[in-house]
Amino acid sequence: MNTAQQLGYDPQAKLLMIHADDAGLSHAENRATIQALEKGMVNSYSIMVPCPWFHEMALYAKDHPQYDMGLHLTLTCEWETYRFGPVLPVSEVPGLVDGHGHFFRKREQLREKATAEEVEKELRAQIEKALRMGLRPTHLDSHMYSVGSHPDFFTVYKKLGEAYGLPVLINKQMMEMVGLDPKTHIGPNDLTIDHTYLGAIADFEKGQFNQGYQHILEKLQPGLNLILIHPAFDEPEMQAIAINHPNFGAEWRQMDFDFFTSEKTKATLVEHNIQMVTWGDIKTQNSF
Amino acid sequence: MNTAQQLGYDPQAKLLMIHADDAGLSHAENRATIQALEKGMVNSYSIMVPCPWFHEMALYAKDHPQYDMGLHLTLTCEWETYRFGPVLPVSEVPGLVDGHGHFFRKREQLREKATAEEVEKELRAQIEKALRMGLRPTHLDSHMYSVGSHPDFFTVYKKLGEAYGLPVLINKQMMEMVGLDPKTHIGPNDLTIDHTYLGAIADFEKGQFNQGYQHILEKLQPGLNLILIHPAFDEPEMQAIAINHPNFGAEWRQMDFDFFTSEKTKATLVEHNIQMVTWGDIKTQNSF
Repeated sequence: MNTAQQLGYDPQAKLLMIHADDAGLSHAENRATIQALEKGMVNSYSIMVPCPWFHEMALYAKDHPQYDMGLHLTLTCEWETYRFGPVLPVSEVPGLVDGHGHFFRKREQLREKATAEEVEKELRAQIEKALRMGLRPTHLDSHMYSVGSHPDFFTVYKKLGEAYGLPVLINKQMMEMVGLDPKTHIGPNDLTIDHTYLGAIADFEKGQFNQGYQHILEKLQPGLNLILIHPAFDEPEMQAIAINHPNFGAEWRQMDFDFFTSEKTKATLVEHNIQMVTWGDIKTQNSF
Repeated sequence: MNTAQQLGYDPQAKLLMIHADDAGLSHAENRATIQALEKGMVNSYSIMVPCPWFHEMALYAKDHPQYDMGLHLTLTCEWETYRFGPVLPVSEVPGLVDGHGHFFRKREQLREKATAEEVEKELRAQIEKALRMGLRPTHLDSHMYSVGSHPDFFTVYKKLGEAYGLPVLINKQMMEMVGLDPKTHIGPNDLTIDHTYLGAIADFEKGQFNQGYQHILEKLQPGLNLILIHPAFDEPEMQAIAINHPNFGAEWRQMDFDFFTSEKTKATLVEHNIQMVTWGDIKTQNSF
């Protein structure tokens, strides 16, 4: 039984969620995410609680409960000069931060320095801050899939999903990307996303970024599919955040926005009989 | 003896500092401040340590010690959706923050809720964070002159200047603006700025912003003069920060940048025989 069937759909149904990560990161990210929700094909997104533009996005989320919204649990900050850190005082989670009190830039540093206890404390604090703000998330997922950088962090992640009654993003390809063995760490009762897709660095470098997305849509397999995008505008703010970081940089994010708000992409979804689903649908049908 | 004489200049010398406040607030503010220092007439600036773009500006300051740089001690955040709070954990300074852990928007709220002990703890933490980062400030000043919102906060401010061997911005007009009596709170040994100028809201509303600045320069009095500007670019990031806040908003800040980087303004300074001084000059000549 594939996940489509588990969710009550025909086993041949091509289910798709187009999900915007990184809301709250910057104003350019917030504005593009909002436009992609309202006018584009993005049908779910998740917010980074520790980021400088969290408050703006949270106010929007409260005013627009019709959009599927999760928490993009954050343990790393990949940027060079735009630096943020934990919601908790650094003295409570010293293993999560560098000498300036900011999150590490790489998952490997997190794995080496952090304890599972610190990860749990900080992620609970992020969830509690969002709830105090009045947010009602539909799901939990993870920035840079950093929760997969250590088996014990992944256990915390699943435990938090259960504790708060929220589905968490579990997917074989994402786990393999961060070096976590899916065979060992996906349990029999875990709801998993069959196929997860990200824009490809190789396509981006070859100037074939859109063709990559087009190919994903045209060849979409039956089951539950998830495309993770990062819409933002290619403006000075986003350019400065992503300095020396072309992959997932400002131009990349603008292309994400453009592709998933275009009429051509809308037509592709119809032509290929793709059915859109949200984390809210998954949550309801799995009686979380 | 006016301050020009105290500093070893002719009593008739028209001394001027053109100072950029609010570096670190946003990327648009940082970029404009840097350009105004490098290509314009700004000859001193100060950084807001608790702000999201502090790190970017601090890296620049470390690489460019030739520019006069102070700390813009921060106790308030006037913005509606772009919210930041203390460097210290909120549990250590509960009287400085609203229910979300952000600084109050108004000086009056700060005056009502905060204790002088909290103000001192937080401002010391801001200074210490800047020093740990390797910054070597030339002076201390105060965002929204919030240190003047209560006599006890002002005492803390002066005490910190002494403790760190740094001149602090003391000026009659600024004190009057925030409701602190200059007669009572300027001591015989305090070095004061004779005349401090800010862009005028009335001029801005009448579309005569530049004329206001031009008038200030043409009528500049002998003594130590300080023009406080807030250069930034009128871009989406700055527009979103200053939503519903036209005074000191994105357009205002762009006009600050444009006026104080223009050839016409440069010519005015020469024509009126205005001598530029920095906090570094003041610091040296007062053997701080």
